[in-house]
Amino acid sequence: MKTATRLDHLEVTLIREFISGASDGVVNLGLGQTNEPIPTCITERIAEPGKIAYAPYGPNAGFPELRAQIAERAGVAASRVVITAGVQEAIYLTMMTMVEPGMKVAVPNPGFPVYGSIAKICGAEVVEYSLREEDAFRPTPEIIGEVLDKEVDLIALCSPGNPTGAVATEESWAEIAELLADASIPVLSDEIYLPFQADGVPSHPSMLKLYPRTFCAAGLSKTHGMAGWRIGWLIVPEEVVGKVVALHQHVMTSVSGIVQQAALGAFTDAGDRAVEELNQRLKKKRSMITGALADSRWIVAGGDGAFYLWLRHPAFEDGLELATHLRDECGVLTIPGVAFGSAGEAYTRVSYSVNEEVLARGVDRLLSIEA
Amino acid sequence: MKTATRLDHLEVTLIREFISGASDGVVNLGLGQTNEPIPTCITERIAEPGKIAYAPYGPNAGFPELRAQIAERAGVAASRVVITAGVQEAIYLTMMTMVEPGMKVAVPNPGFPVYGSIAKICGAEVVEYSLREEDAFRPTPEIIGEVLDKEVDLIALCSPGNPTGAVATEESWAEIAELLADASIPVLSDEIYLPFQADGVPSHPSMLKLYPRTFCAAGLSKTHGMAGWRIGWLIVPEEVVGKVVALHQHVMTSVSGIVQQAALGAFTDAGDRAVEELNQRLKKKRSMITGALADSRWIVAGGDGAFYLWLRHPAFEDGLELATHLRDECGVLTIPGVAFGSAGEAYTRVSYSVNEEVLARGVDRLLSIEA
Repeated sequence: MKTATRLDHLEVTLIREFISGASDGVVNLGLGQTNEPIPTCITERIAEPGKIAYAPYGPNAGFPELRAQIAERAGVAASRVVITAGVQEAIYLTMMTMVEPGMKVAVPNPGFPVYGSIAKICGAEVVEYSLREEDAFRPTPEIIGEVLDKEVDLIALCSPGNPTGAVATEESWAEIAELLADASIPVLSDEIYLPFQADGVPSHPSMLKLYPRTFCAAGLSKTHGMAGWRIGWLIVPEEVVGKVVALHQHVMTSVSGIVQQAALGAFTDAGDRAVEELNQRLKKKRSMITGALADSRWIVAGGDGAFYLWLRHPAFEDGLELATHLRDECGVLTIPGVAFGSAGEAYTRVSYSVNEEVLARGVDRLLSIEA
Repeated sequence: MKTATRLDHLEVTLIREFISGASDGVVNLGLGQTNEPIPTCITERIAEPGKIAYAPYGPNAGFPELRAQIAERAGVAASRVVITAGVQEAIYLTMMTMVEPGMKVAVPNPGFPVYGSIAKICGAEVVEYSLREEDAFRPTPEIIGEVLDKEVDLIALCSPGNPTGAVATEESWAEIAELLADASIPVLSDEIYLPFQADGVPSHPSMLKLYPRTFCAAGLSKTHGMAGWRIGWLIVPEEVVGKVVALHQHVMTSVSGIVQQAALGAFTDAGDRAVEELNQRLKKKRSMITGALADSRWIVAGGDGAFYLWLRHPAFEDGLELATHLRDECGVLTIPGVAFGSAGEAYTRVSYSVNEEVLARGVDRLLSIEA
């Protein structure tokens, strides 16, 4: 049975294939999530059966009180906020709403692979912009300016970045916003990792504050341990809200009401404290792993934010060989950088968001490569 | 900002617009859901905080145990089941996977409007097949044969139907399956209302049992009061599972884990009893409303299944005028048939799934049209 051409490029991702090759005893530093429990300020919102007895259809755009909370923190009108099934759906809605077949969509390399594959579902041509070790894999005005000169119709930005953990400097972020204003194209700003910066790394504002044609995607998957519950949001320019919500309605009606009900617990003092405490734990873990690697031949090429380090090792030119060796010989699972694009070929991604004991074992195994 | 052409046809639906015009005191017989509580066999699965403390990413296709339960009842391999955010996403995935721009997609008129609007998002031409009062709005082999002769590339079927509640006869359903086999095209069979038949109306099997190229959409929204939680499934031919799951992954990663966890409670003896009891209540309500209307000039043109009656009234040739009069003068909200297509112009849809007291008041108001 012939499936639609728009899906021809979709295959099992290298990430999944690589993970499925891991044996049982491997220490998993491959996770793209925190492995933290959901804060009780969230779970308690739905832990009484009386509170969850009825589940009528809700508003397509999401619960008004949840949209209002998100809007207040983002400093935008609540009408611009659409509750989505995580950042994944936010990216999907952005591209399906804004990208015509034949358009050019700029995506980071290395970067989250779905930017490009969703652009292709929309029939677009993918134009990659390569991030570089000499910039610590940060997006720079020079790199973004070059790709904008290729007359792309939409650009995806992600800072702090996945897989590199690289955080744009505040100054370069502002310069990038000016370049976007000159190009006058929509930007997808994936800000799911924005709450997570390493000690001493200054944050930058949301692109929402700097450029009006921003489609800003974020959510509670990483900050509040809710990855599997699928809750995020997309903040869009007022003039396209109607189309985005109509598409969202056609895709899934609305995000699950019980998940929205729970999510309200994140926008409280207790929810804020939970993020602050998580940040402290992540900073401690980051110190633990960077401290241990400092005396080794490991090269930390990126990792100022999110909860990733972006590593290479002089004994392995090829990152896939490196990650395979780590997985099969050293017993530690990392994600080969090439899974995120050709510019990641020499690297592998390590997530330090696991608990301290697991992280300690994982670090030992990373170091065992030199034994 | 110019949005993509694929969304040009999307507008606020007439259904929503009509509902928003209702005043506060109106009796609402317009609901497309049962307004019943979620059975406790479902809510108790997630009512202990300890059970919901962690929410890691789950498998894209859904929890294996949930897929297995659905597969066992459908009599198919579990690998063919994809857990979706309700029937809405199941329809969306079917069309995005199977429909190329320029293809022809056949949809019922009257019918659920999103079949056509999703087909248009995919760039298809919509070919309507009209259901008729002389058939009690059931799909017949004659009607389906005629539209298949127009060389359509995919057809959407819905029995029991929304908005008409019409149930195909078992014999005609089997004949339709034979016509599909001759045409050899994929069919989207929306079977969300299949568990609901009026007394004395024989059910028909799932199209899955009769035709191998069936994309069967169903879920727990109506049977278990879970409409707002967004949980359903799509059962597809084995050979396209990979593409459907890959698209689903790009759209939303997976359905919310907490909702899947809860949904497991539906596939138990208690879950089955809940559906049986709901069916008994619906049958009683149906008798109540059809009994009351029998002595009036109201004409019941459809309504053997689901929880809808499809009505017209000789005093109103135009169903929109009828529904507007009911809403504004009689104080009862129904959904004008034209919201479901031109062949519904003379009719209005009444949902009898509200509680008995509300239904009694609604029926009084329907009858007041003749006062």
